[in-house]
Amino acid sequence: MIIKIKKNTEEEKINNMVDFIKKVEGVEVQFIRSKEGISFGITGDIKAINKNSLLNNKYVDEIIEVKEPYKKVNRAFKPEDTIVSIGGEKIGGEKFSVIAGPCSVESENQILAIASEVKKHGAQFLRGGAYKPRTSPYSFQGMKKDGLELLIKARKSTGLPIVTELMSPYDIEHFEENVDIIQVGARNMQNFELLKELGKTKKPILLKRGLSNTIEELLMSAEYIMYGGNENIILCERGIRTFERYTRNTLDISAIPIIKKLSHLPVVVDPSHSSGKWWLVDPLAKAALVAGADGIIVEVHNDPENALCDGDQSIKPSKFADMMKGLKAIGDAIGKEV
Amino acid sequence: MIIKIKKNTEEEKINNMVDFIKKVEGVEVQFIRSKEGISFGITGDIKAINKNSLLNNKYVDEIIEVKEPYKKVNRAFKPEDTIVSIGGEKIGGEKFSVIAGPCSVESENQILAIASEVKKHGAQFLRGGAYKPRTSPYSFQGMKKDGLELLIKARKSTGLPIVTELMSPYDIEHFEENVDIIQVGARNMQNFELLKELGKTKKPILLKRGLSNTIEELLMSAEYIMYGGNENIILCERGIRTFERYTRNTLDISAIPIIKKLSHLPVVVDPSHSSGKWWLVDPLAKAALVAGADGIIVEVHNDPENALCDGDQSIKPSKFADMMKGLKAIGDAIGKEV
Amino acid sequence: MIIKIKKNTEEEKINNMVDFIKKVEGVEVQFIRSKEGISFGITGDIKAINKNSLLNNKYVDEIIEVKEPYKKVNRAFKPEDTIVSIGGEKIGGEKFSVIAGPCSVESENQILAIASEVKKHGAQFLRGGAYKPRTSPYSFQGMKKDGLELLIKARKSTGLPIVTELMSPYDIEHFEENVDIIQVGARNMQNFELLKELGKTKKPILLKRGLSNTIEELLMSAEYIMYGGNENIILCERGIRTFERYTRNTLDISAIPIIKKLSHLPVVVDPSHSSGKWWLVDPLAKAALVAGADGIIVEVHNDPENALCDGDQSIKPSKFADMMKGLKAIGDAIGKEV
Amino acid sequence: MIIKIKKNTEEEKINNMVDFIKKVEGVEVQFIRSKEGISFGITGDIKAINKNSLLNNKYVDEIIEVKEPYKKVNRAFKPEDTIVSIGGEKIGGEKFSVIAGPCSVESENQILAIASEVKKHGAQFLRGGAYKPRTSPYSFQGMKKDGLELLIKARKSTGLPIVTELMSPYDIEHFEENVDIIQVGARNMQNFELLKELGKTKKPILLKRGLSNTIEELLMSAEYIMYGGNENIILCERGIRTFERYTRNTLDISAIPIIKKLSHLPVVVDPSHSSGKWWLVDPLAKAALVAGADGIIVEVHNDPENALCDGDQSIKPSKFADMMKGLKAIGDAIGKEV
Repeated sequence: MIIKIKKNTEEEKINNMVDFIKKVEGVEVQFIRSKEGISFGITGDIKAINKNSLLNNKYVDEIIEVKEPYKKVNRAFKPEDTIVSIGGEKIGGEKFSVIAGPCSVESENQILAIASEVKKHGAQFLRGGAYKPRTSPYSFQGMKKDGLELLIKARKSTGLPIVTELMSPYDIEHFEENVDIIQVGARNMQNFELLKELGKTKKPILLKRGLSNTIEELLMSAEYIMYGGNENIILCERGIRTFERYTRNTLDISAIPIIKKLSHLPVVVDPSHSSGKWWLVDPLAKAALVAGADGIIVEVHNDPENALCDGDQSIKPSKFADMMKGLKAIGDAIGKEV
Repeated sequence: MIIKIKKNTEEEKINNMVDFIKKVEGVEVQFIRSKEGISFGITGDIKAINKNSLLNNKYVDEIIEVKEPYKKVNRAFKPEDTIVSIGGEKIGGEKFSVIAGPCSVESENQILAIASEVKKHGAQFLRGGAYKPRTSPYSFQGMKKDGLELLIKARKSTGLPIVTELMSPYDIEHFEENVDIIQVGARNMQNFELLKELGKTKKPILLKRGLSNTIEELLMSAEYIMYGGNENIILCERGIRTFERYTRNTLDISAIPIIKKLSHLPVVVDPSHSSGKWWLVDPLAKAALVAGADGIIVEVHNDPENALCDGDQSIKPSKFADMMKGLKAIGDAIGKEV
Repeated sequence: MIIKIKKNTEEEKINNMVDFIKKVEGVEVQFIRSKEGISFGITGDIKAINKNSLLNNKYVDEIIEVKEPYKKVNRAFKPEDTIVSIGGEKIGGEKFSVIAGPCSVESENQILAIASEVKKHGAQFLRGGAYKPRTSPYSFQGMKKDGLELLIKARKSTGLPIVTELMSPYDIEHFEENVDIIQVGARNMQNFELLKELGKTKKPILLKRGLSNTIEELLMSAEYIMYGGNENIILCERGIRTFERYTRNTLDISAIPIIKKLSHLPVVVDPSHSSGKWWLVDPLAKAALVAGADGIIVEVHNDPENALCDGDQSIKPSKFADMMKGLKAIGDAIGKEV
Repeated sequence: MIIKIKKNTEEEKINNMVDFIKKVEGVEVQFIRSKEGISFGITGDIKAINKNSLLNNKYVDEIIEVKEPYKKVNRAFKPEDTIVSIGGEKIGGEKFSVIAGPCSVESENQILAIASEVKKHGAQFLRGGAYKPRTSPYSFQGMKKDGLELLIKARKSTGLPIVTELMSPYDIEHFEENVDIIQVGARNMQNFELLKELGKTKKPILLKRGLSNTIEELLMSAEYIMYGGNENIILCERGIRTFERYTRNTLDISAIPIIKKLSHLPVVVDPSHSSGKWWLVDPLAKAALVAGADGIIVEVHNDPENALCDGDQSIKPSKFADMMKGLKAIGDAIGKEV
């Protein structure tokens, strides 16, 4: 429920009203400042609110029911774009951000070399898996803590903030201290216990859409994190499961403008996982840019043929450089800084 | 099966070889001229070909097995892009073509007004349904023959070639005489009898991907038409059916670069049907352009609120004009003429 | 819209009312006799009906709006099960019908041998493809007219009515004369022109659900046929397309009780196409029986290893005999005659 | 890899061979005793095994490569059905087991009443959610620890072992002590960290198939648990996500016979979640029985209209009693004890 306040209402009157509503048990109030003026959003047990008495309040202009089940992530609750700050970098707003790096951290040489390459060609963030969710217990499960150490070294040498996937609540503390953006993978998008724990931190979270989850469910999972108190969320479209067999998944390009309309949160696209083929990364990244995405997260490997995972969908640094040039040219044309 | 001929082989020797192979019952031979030299493709009962004797032929450089089930539409059979000519216009090659118009022809005023608007803002083709495939027998089934007459009037007044859907083999003759591009709708993509009939004409065919068909199946349906002798085929990605409920269908943007790689045929995108929402048309059209599509087919209506069908996904002429400007700017950046 | 007539209303009064409504342009009236009394259903341009004046009519008990888009196939329009009569046999009602035979008619020996085997083990109908819808133009397209001749021979020798697929409206007349049940394949479920033509005949139609069509769309396609005047329709659930790769399609077993609730039409299951594996036919046929299906259509071949199509999903006559025994035992337990 | 031992090989020789192989680093050996004789399965780093030397061993009959990625859950590794023992009850083998109870534990009265009802009508296990995975943070999240206490009371009063869902690794210890079967929900099927933790216990695990997971992926998740050392796994088919909108999910009935063929683990069906409609529970339960399932898990509520969750798909005790009678009759016919 959104309470729109009449223009020119004194700050004090508004504060009194907020204080009054906050006393109702089970509800939470948040300020919404936009070009249209001041409103405040109410979530929780809104049935406990006396709507009529609010409507009779002389400072209240209008009451808007938010029919979508997501509230705090809803653009109605925050008309301006959320911009997530990570160290000196940002995701959201005017900038198209590029997160690049290997599927898995494999060795110091590998990650340092790739980090330096992707930085040189314009990436702002380094990705790399340390804890790997694998379908098979017999597959390489990642270098784990050692991999994280190597990512930290790569950050030190390049200055790039690091993005890596968290799989277990047991590791949250360690990630909070050492990682810049915590990734929640597609398979954990509805691991609600993990989401609740992440809601308690202030770390930026990169939340990937599940393989068969709707856009609404993705927003509901973000709502879990925001409900817990963490507003630093970046959504990620990474392809959905369909009957098509040529690609690993089907990139739902429409999800980008839809999420931008429904929510204030930034959204990035993963053209590597959504296609499963390296030669599709370039056109899909460009499609993401013009469709309104705030960035991409892309797999780059210096030796894809011998990568420990996802070699087929990883591009080489030279290919990455070409793609960046193409993205910049398009960015110039549409007024988005790449 | 593709027979690659050694460079500098005399024309006469090649012709002799072709004549020899053509005598084998059940096979068909076609010339492939590309930068790499001359080859020829063999389709049909290729088991009847004596491969060893061919390999021993001194003019034969190599024999390549085409493992994909589609042959004539395969890029291996024709490395250059197919460009379909329609009157003075073309689809395929350097140009990004725009087909625009209403879902259904509703009246003379309506179709003439829309045709003139879309032409003014840069469309090269006029679309409009005369025979409408509707899920319900109680829904408006189109103006049929009268609608086609109005399309012809609109062509006369604007010069735009017309694209309209064929539903029954009984109407082929009438369409051949009067229509510039015959559309085969998603629901008829595997109406093989219709495809066979269309293979006998020389008319350009716009073949839409079925709601749950794979890319390979789309290519196989094009193969039916080409097998029949008609090489003027334009493929159309128009969204597939998934579990996502926000959009009418899910645009499979990856299908564009995939089709361009696998086949020499041009491919256009329908951002209207794939989304079902007018405000998604603009971003999806841009995504199609940068992903490598040869054009779009888009629903434009001067009065969407009162359209007899698909009002929700139709854009107004002013919106169409804006979209065209945006597409041109991007086209300039990527070197594609819009 | 359904008009429920008060009990004990004289026949004459009812007839007068029907005659009166029939005069309204664009509507059609049909009688509904059930245990609850007499009603009549109105389809077409129901907005032209003066509802208030009907409600004031002293013989009218109640007016029920049918919100589903399908009307004539709706159980609300006909509470009793439709039983389709084919020669001396029936589909629908108390009997579980078994249609069996090869994917394709291949030779006289083959079809006569299989027909005699399936009859011996309890099939009531013979299936066999003469005109085959194949994804590839290079695949065996069926024996066509010659195949139909062989089916007729098989019917003569066994007495089994024959079921075979129609692909083109050009063949309807020939099928009407020679075939007992005309099958519309999954790929043609929304070939509305074909459905309209079939609505003009009185032949029983076996209408298969499309690969990605909803239950409602299947019912709408049946509505097309019934709207045209043909009430002899048997629906067929044959599996839908999903992301699962082990089976050819996913049998939607829930569709059986749903269709039985929503519609009065009989429904049969195709356990062969829905699975693509012969060893799944037996358990899926049993599941169909207990879920309430009116029968099955199953592929039986005397030499599956060498079948010209669908060998993997065809069972041998001995396996068919075993399955029939199992079905009979279950039928006895649930009070359904197999 | 499976090593088949020649018949009549002395136990001692076999033991020597096993001891020898066990010394290879990174591999694990397990005995397979079946009607065909003795084999042993090797998992892990099988490339380290010298296959030639094994083939030359005079006691080795044959070496079989297991090409499926799942090993320990593979029927090739254990030809006999796994029967999971829970207290005095069993799941798997000749018996069709029935797990019944409410979606959520709501109060002492509610759970005791339902437990007593389902026991009276033939259920062997009581289900009930204490920790609830909900799409929305604003929805009822379950009674948690208090709910578990009430389940324990219900077990005490009825003797029924209890099944309830675990969501967080933090609760494993508490569940191990108090719960009889730990359920892993569909959304956590690929929460690999949770699976690894559960592999360390000996508790029976009911592992539900994810909404868009393939059968192979379900088996791989079971492999994670078994790889960790816990062999007490019951698989659960609960419907997959498709484009069909009438049902909540689409029950993949084919998954039952497929899982029984590929794996030795028992499999149960959830007809409540797969359909989302109470009146579909009965036919789907029957379909599960005849398709070869080892049981069902079904939602029963004494007051569905006021249930805190899943009221639409819950059946009343009287309906449950009817269903049980129907299942018993069919069970008698097919030789399965219900």
